[in-house]
Amino acid sequence: MGMKLYGLAMSTNTSRAMVCLHEKEVDFELVPVDVFSGEHKLPPFLSKNPFGLIPALEDDDLTLFESRAITAYIAEKYKETGPDLIRKNNAKESALVRVWAEVESESYDPAISPIIYEYLVAPFQGKEPDQSVIQPNIDKVKKVLDVYEQRLTTTQYLAGDSFTLADLNHIPNTHYFMNTPCASLINDRPHLKAWWIHISSRPSFRNLVHALTFGQNNSS
Amino acid sequence: MGMKLYGLAMSTNTSRAMVCLHEKEVDFELVPVDVFSGEHKLPPFLSKNPFGLIPALEDDDLTLFESRAITAYIAEKYKETGPDLIRKNNAKESALVRVWAEVESESYDPAISPIIYEYLVAPFQGKEPDQSVIQPNIDKVKKVLDVYEQRLTTTQYLAGDSFTLADLNHIPNTHYFMNTPCASLINDRPHLKAWWIHISSRPSFRNLVHALTFGQNNSS
Repeated sequence: MGMKLYGLAMSTNTSRAMVCLHEKEVDFELVPVDVFSGEHKLPPFLSKNPFGLIPALEDDDLTLFESRAITAYIAEKYKETGPDLIRKNNAKESALVRVWAEVESESYDPAISPIIYEYLVAPFQGKEPDQSVIQPNIDKVKKVLDVYEQRLTTTQYLAGDSFTLADLNHIPNTHYFMNTPCASLINDRPHLKAWWIHISSRPSFRNLVHALTFGQNNSS
Repeated sequence: MGMKLYGLAMSTNTSRAMVCLHEKEVDFELVPVDVFSGEHKLPPFLSKNPFGLIPALEDDDLTLFESRAITAYIAEKYKETGPDLIRKNNAKESALVRVWAEVESESYDPAISPIIYEYLVAPFQGKEPDQSVIQPNIDKVKKVLDVYEQRLTTTQYLAGDSFTLADLNHIPNTHYFMNTPCASLINDRPHLKAWWIHISSRPSFRNLVHALTFGQNNSS
């Protein structure tokens, strides 16, 4: 039986798992969860993730949630297939993958997600972007991106000279961020801009980018 | 050369790494960083962690930061010593360690840290705890703890029936949380309370608990 991913491709957390599955060319079924009607807060889905958050992954009798735990699981399970996303046989590089993957979840995502929400999701709900939320997060993002820019002057990717989970985990949220008026924060930093163009051009993401539609159909 | 951990034992992020080093009985030197004078924002420390956050770990020519990446590195490097914190030889259990470790960093810590800050750190800075910060985070914590309580009716530890990194990463912040007026949120949930008593009794933590002093000497 193939893997089943429960979620919604337009969600960054679901598409994070999908990019990883595509990198490893894993056959999987995306099972839609209608978060707009609250399906993720009802028992069938809660049995997969008791926190009521998408995505969840089923692989035979194993059920996982938390998108970054899912990408790590896929990268480990299929370590012999496709790119070596966790630098499995190099303890130092592997440690640096963990460091920069943590930076994404601890510093990068918490700063850019509120900006994405205000510019792309709030209008979808009929609200104006709240500048009192956006501005302090722009300040946080700038500090993070300054470190990234400096890092990327020394290595091609965040954890070293190979594309890894540390880069991959950034893709869906950065895609949305580039559709906000704050995209210049990345475009004005040349190494960061080159890194983004490079990682967002991977077929694993081009295959699903059309599904990341927040901000495109606000009237629908 | 032994490992060097740069940080401050009273900080949850530093002591998270220390608990893991103690579990694995690793010989290391704690090199104090004077965060009160801003030493972590100056070049010598910034060369170890460009984000200017403690802790950082030096192991020969490898320098790591992000406490949860450090605990994962130690657990992997010393997988043959002490408790098997990552369930190395069981892909499913290993995946569940990642899931519940992500829950700690994505859901648990973001909700309890502001409460700890308001009750234990703000008074240290001469400020009153801000109830407008505390109350919404209590609501968030309750939802997380309800899931934990349910989970711990089926397994002895978060990721299964073994003590793992998923439990370990919770120890320092939960210790401080238990010193706030919100401790009842854990004490009123019997399985969660038993889990906390159990994991906080481990020698790895008893050896350093005296150093977690926020909230004890507010006038110093």
